[in-house]
Amino acid sequence: MPELRKDPLNDRWVIIAPERADRPNSFLRARADTDVANCPFCPGNEALTTSELYAVRPANSPINSPGWTLRAIPNRYPALRTEIPISRTADGLYDRMGGTGAHEVIIETPEHNGGLAKMDAPQIAQVLRAWQVRMLDLSRDERLAYAQIFQNVGTPAGATLAHPHSQLIALPLVPREIAQELTAARAHFGAKSRCLLCDLVAQELTAKERLVHENESWVALAPFASQSPFEVHLHPKTHRPSFEKLDGSELGALAACLRTVLRKLAIALEGPAMNLVLMTLPLREPAHPFYHLRIVLKPTLTQPGGFEWGTGFCINPTSPEDAARFLRQTEA
Amino acid sequence: MPELRKDPLNDRWVIIAPERADRPNSFLRARADTDVANCPFCPGNEALTTSELYAVRPANSPINSPGWTLRAIPNRYPALRTEIPISRTADGLYDRMGGTGAHEVIIETPEHNGGLAKMDAPQIAQVLRAWQVRMLDLSRDERLAYAQIFQNVGTPAGATLAHPHSQLIALPLVPREIAQELTAARAHFGAKSRCLLCDLVAQELTAKERLVHENESWVALAPFASQSPFEVHLHPKTHRPSFEKLDGSELGALAACLRTVLRKLAIALEGPAMNLVLMTLPLREPAHPFYHLRIVLKPTLTQPGGFEWGTGFCINPTSPEDAARFLRQTEA
Repeated sequence: MPELRKDPLNDRWVIIAPERADRPNSFLRARADTDVANCPFCPGNEALTTSELYAVRPANSPINSPGWTLRAIPNRYPALRTEIPISRTADGLYDRMGGTGAHEVIIETPEHNGGLAKMDAPQIAQVLRAWQVRMLDLSRDERLAYAQIFQNVGTPAGATLAHPHSQLIALPLVPREIAQELTAARAHFGAKSRCLLCDLVAQELTAKERLVHENESWVALAPFASQSPFEVHLHPKTHRPSFEKLDGSELGALAACLRTVLRKLAIALEGPAMNLVLMTLPLREPAHPFYHLRIVLKPTLTQPGGFEWGTGFCINPTSPEDAARFLRQTEA
Repeated sequence: MPELRKDPLNDRWVIIAPERADRPNSFLRARADTDVANCPFCPGNEALTTSELYAVRPANSPINSPGWTLRAIPNRYPALRTEIPISRTADGLYDRMGGTGAHEVIIETPEHNGGLAKMDAPQIAQVLRAWQVRMLDLSRDERLAYAQIFQNVGTPAGATLAHPHSQLIALPLVPREIAQELTAARAHFGAKSRCLLCDLVAQELTAKERLVHENESWVALAPFASQSPFEVHLHPKTHRPSFEKLDGSELGALAACLRTVLRKLAIALEGPAMNLVLMTLPLREPAHPFYHLRIVLKPTLTQPGGFEWGTGFCINPTSPEDAARFLRQTEA
């Protein structure tokens, strides 16, 4: 059974999930699976997956049958499980929690060799909509505090299956990184009565040197303190705290911005391995004036080493100004 | 020129070091160099390196000549530089610092295919002694706040050169991870008047289920909240705050413990890629009663993915109890 454990030296919880070791290719030396015939995420192989939670499919087509354009399913090797009751126990110095949560997979397309960078904007919007649907459904479970949406593309980025998919892990607590961002944003708002991220966007839209792309409502930036080369963050131009509350036209504009940026990255870096991470408010949180959502894209061009593990700092050999200039000049 | 930049959303500084992109093999697709003839760290190729800062070599042998058993040199592609003056500036919301610091390489052996796991204890002690010598020398520069010693072994762990070496990066500030540990340890001491890490060692020596190895003065543990499979931490059995203040016999016992653990890991995991990280007090800090040094070994068996980047949490498929049992049973 998965379990959450907290390190007494820092605010880092770890999910100990022994079932995950049963996955094919769970350790590093393996490559992402590229065998289409045996791919559990390909159409016709629905019997190889858990039963779908949500799908985009023709009206009246049976659940778990082919013909879909998107499916959301429980992860077969879940890091956390909804069936586990909340439990919190001490073990001397240590803290444990039962592995209450959810771990889902969003199969983004029937195309084994597809992916967000190859989709048109309406197809991408359909994926974003699926994230919203699953977050809204999980937010009804009051034990769950945060839903982390992410995508690992390519083996160096942590993917074990090649078929395009994103994942959702819902946690019984607000994770350390989001908690730290909320603390910093709350302090900024306390001092200035302005959203830290809105201030950041305004400064970047004036400076322009780290601007990658913009449309009517979204802006893509190489962050000032980029942790790794060619990191890009997509921000709303106006204050939008929670991802799951974006309306259809906001999602459409985000999809268009995301498409352009992903295509620029694919061309500039020749189809890099990459992580996508959605940073947003905790579930059921009211729309605060002090923090807003963003999407983080992190091409996997460098590896964290001992320095990064020890310090929590990163060494980035590419300045965000250079990365942004290069991406602006890349036609997509 | 390298520069430090702080993300306004968290306490994470990033070193933007464009010179590092000039390195051979600086991006991920490259493999660690294994060409002995052109290895800058092999004996006879001393002219390919910067001039040595410290070496173990026969009496009266000239500096930068062959015959050495260990050399410490400035990194040719430094993340930080001592020549850069301290400067701190604001840029709107953002914070910048000049890239003041030091980045050194400790070539641990003349053997291209050697490494700590293949050395005997006195050879390992010689490497540990070199870390102390360089930390003590750099601690005379009062601009430097923390010296991070680390080792990246193998391409998946971030190594770009195969020849066994460790690195030292001295920073003008105390890094986030150490600062958080010091805060937690100070709070524990404030409440209980005991060192958090001494309490942890005492609890583990009683529980025994995460014990990997011990000798008269050191203990190797799989941490309760291990971030990754087969992580092992080496702690002193009695309170020893600063690495650079360990005496010769303490270093010798640490070397013996480290040798056994590295050999167990090499056998159990078939020569894994790995990071070694030294966690210790900031430079020139008095020997506090609340925190003590440890050595962290992190085999690179999994990759951080989007979930880890987004949350700061890790998913570990191997319980530390299983890892410790397996390593205890591995003869080394």
